[in-house]
Amino acid sequence: MSFIPVAEDSDFPIHNLPYGVFSTRGDPRLRIGVAIGDQILDLSVIKHLFTGPVLSKHQDVFNQPVLNSFMGLGQAAWKEARVFLQNLLSVSQARLRDDTELRKRAFISQASAMMHLPATIGDYTDFYSSRQHATNVGIMFRDKENALMPNWLHLPVGYHGRASSIVVSGTPIRRPMGQMKPDDSKPPVYGACKLLDMELEMQFHCFFIMAPSAVLKCRLVSLAQEDCDVPNGENMRVSKLHSGKAFFVGPGNRLGEPIPISKAHEHIFGMVLMNDWSARDIQKWEYVPLGPFLGKSFGTTISPWVVPMDALMPFAVPNPKQDPRPLPYLCHDRPYTFDINLSVALKGEGMSQAATICKSNSKYMYWTMLQQLTHHSVNGCNLRPGDLLATGTISGPEPESFGSMLELSWKGTKPISLGNGQTRKFLLDGDEVIITGYCQGDGYRIGFGQCAGKVLPALLPS
Amino acid sequence: MSFIPVAEDSDFPIHNLPYGVFSTRGDPRLRIGVAIGDQILDLSVIKHLFTGPVLSKHQDVFNQPVLNSFMGLGQAAWKEARVFLQNLLSVSQARLRDDTELRKRAFISQASAMMHLPATIGDYTDFYSSRQHATNVGIMFRDKENALMPNWLHLPVGYHGRASSIVVSGTPIRRPMGQMKPDDSKPPVYGACKLLDMELEMQFHCFFIMAPSAVLKCRLVSLAQEDCDVPNGENMRVSKLHSGKAFFVGPGNRLGEPIPISKAHEHIFGMVLMNDWSARDIQKWEYVPLGPFLGKSFGTTISPWVVPMDALMPFAVPNPKQDPRPLPYLCHDRPYTFDINLSVALKGEGMSQAATICKSNSKYMYWTMLQQLTHHSVNGCNLRPGDLLATGTISGPEPESFGSMLELSWKGTKPISLGNGQTRKFLLDGDEVIITGYCQGDGYRIGFGQCAGKVLPALLPS
Repeated sequence: MSFIPVAEDSDFPIHNLPYGVFSTRGDPRLRIGVAIGDQILDLSVIKHLFTGPVLSKHQDVFNQPVLNSFMGLGQAAWKEARVFLQNLLSVSQARLRDDTELRKRAFISQASAMMHLPATIGDYTDFYSSRQHATNVGIMFRDKENALMPNWLHLPVGYHGRASSIVVSGTPIRRPMGQMKPDDSKPPVYGACKLLDMELEMQFHCFFIMAPSAVLKCRLVSLAQEDCDVPNGENMRVSKLHSGKAFFVGPGNRLGEPIPISKAHEHIFGMVLMNDWSARDIQKWEYVPLGPFLGKSFGTTISPWVVPMDALMPFAVPNPKQDPRPLPYLCHDRPYTFDINLSVALKGEGMSQAATICKSNSKYMYWTMLQQLTHHSVNGCNLRPGDLLATGTISGPEPESFGSMLELSWKGTKPISLGNGQTRKFLLDGDEVIITGYCQGDGYRIGFGQCAGKVLPALLPS
Repeated sequence: MSFIPVAEDSDFPIHNLPYGVFSTRGDPRLRIGVAIGDQILDLSVIKHLFTGPVLSKHQDVFNQPVLNSFMGLGQAAWKEARVFLQNLLSVSQARLRDDTELRKRAFISQASAMMHLPATIGDYTDFYSSRQHATNVGIMFRDKENALMPNWLHLPVGYHGRASSIVVSGTPIRRPMGQMKPDDSKPPVYGACKLLDMELEMQFHCFFIMAPSAVLKCRLVSLAQEDCDVPNGENMRVSKLHSGKAFFVGPGNRLGEPIPISKAHEHIFGMVLMNDWSARDIQKWEYVPLGPFLGKSFGTTISPWVVPMDALMPFAVPNPKQDPRPLPYLCHDRPYTFDINLSVALKGEGMSQAATICKSNSKYMYWTMLQQLTHHSVNGCNLRPGDLLATGTISGPEPESFGSMLELSWKGTKPISLGNGQTRKFLLDGDEVIITGYCQGDGYRIGFGQCAGKVLPALLPS
């Protein structure tokens, strides 16, 4: 238990301690914090207290505007930080509890903080790992017989997404303009998307050691500080990890060196919620043969708090049976499917409260994150800290667990009720979509906070 | 004419002046240089000479390990830099010509320099804009009737590529392992790619103002220097461009604000050559329905020298007739198709010299770069400086102008002769692929240098 009061239904008990990046009106510096109850512990204020074997040499990772450097230190550092923070915040420890002056500087109420993207995201990859979702979409766009493509049961199908348009929860999303072909018998038209959708997903952060962009960042710092040289990373080795400047180098796995599934877990820092906004009419016309592009790249929302894997491991459940059995490079025994309750609520303009339109669970994934990460690197593709890998839309077996409006309204044929007479097939301007998720523990919950975004009307060209 | 001797067939006369990032054994700092003849002018050494209206306030952009900050200053700054450098290097100007001491420090022979990626690449997008290439691939994978997809003549089809695995010319490429299905009647297998291919492409650098990652970079610098605050970019306006810290902010176009085609040219910094290495067997099995993924993400090679658009504009030729006429948001009159001679050579192990296997030209693009860039942002997707947009494989009408081995060997049915009895259908270990390109002027050429890479054998898991 913590000396910071935590409500029973709070997302952020001492068992969770997710990391995020925040600023305040009084202090606009972007800095790293940990959520506890309705407070944020500002790690830039208490960084000098990290005196463990790994972190004592790397306190500066808590004095940066993104989590990449901390991610870059690896698992030993995260475990050390987590144990230290759980201890520091516990009701039985006097160190911070009784230091009134330090407490005043170290805690900020979440209500007064502005959250930012937790990391510099190098690349973002979206998978397609819910069998139910893939089947539903397959039935709608093809037919029942060929719903699942022949490769789907053999590998986690995925594609490269757009990193620049990933935004943090609370950022409004502009309805996209684009080219679509609403009438198959007529030429395509240019206009505002009419079939705007959301997709319920979860993402995990790859880590390992600093990304090239971060290498340059740190290079600039050291140039500014002492005009010394920092190696350009590309060819640096992991063995440098424990030298003074170690967390300046990268990348995680070197180009050409796959990550075996036995090591995949070490590369996963934590998870966030995600809304993969989708323009179905733009997507339908553009996506053959190279996949989704502008139907997705106008915005992707993630929740600000990165929940560490160590907080989620107690909620791992057995993996789904995979038949046919995947090739050996994709096989693992470790349970790595997570029982995380997910729900999507929609609040239309003028609605007094949001209506829940979907209840799902992250356990409905066919492919595990270990399989996704290993498959991603099997060809030698290098993953960098801060890279985001997304599960793909998470749809369960029951209609109310479908993770997109495309499925919930079955391609617009069944209105979704929002109560008090309101219905939706796709999103209207002013609609706010709020995704939440939590693991239910015994007397506590490991929550993710909110992944929310409101739809702004299209900007019609003047 | 320059006081630096330039051979008649040099890629780098005073008319070109491409920008790159280099280091030397004696000085491992990554720094920005300009190629002239067989020399590099080190801009970090002469940055104090940039005293024009825009650059006098921003000399620091030439003291960085990447071009993003310079790209971030915009067109006025590039034009000022180009005019100044052409003047500084001209035989009639004494300023540098007669300063023996400065000349000794400012010039490095290209032979003694190591080249690096010219910019921090936020996102990389690959288009599919050669009608001949799309038709060839369509015929091979589908049939003559449905060779071109229905959308192809209406919009520049493209997809998100992988930014982390983009490497500079000279970096060896490891043959990827992966999952493929060589025999349709049998289950898929795991193994080394057997149909390794190259793709001849050109890329252009988007610029505008600094990318978010760069924002963070600079933020760190300023924290280190003076612990002052730098705004986090996300909501900064272009109007800040001329304040002291202006090139610290971004992004180029703000999320939700498309770039009209009339402004697209202002967002293009320059061009490089690219080899989009492709594993055809991995690609064929994985790519439905979400597009190419691991068949491409194991490596993408670019040439190190970014040729400015002002050096290329004299070689603009009329655009191809587009029928049907594209939607108005994609229409422009300005000639933006470039007469750039391109060739691909292959040097197998033990071959005394490389054999040319393809001669093409960048004028064989159906969609212009202005159309690609405008379409990319029509949905509000934000483009950032250093982002790379690629044309897609450039194939001409004649078989010898096909831009991939897939097409040159017509799906492996026709061996490609390398002379002296050697042939290829796809790439073998040890093969080096060398792409070159140039515009032929009157008595000079605007060249791109080399985009080269050698194939290493697959790393079989121990």
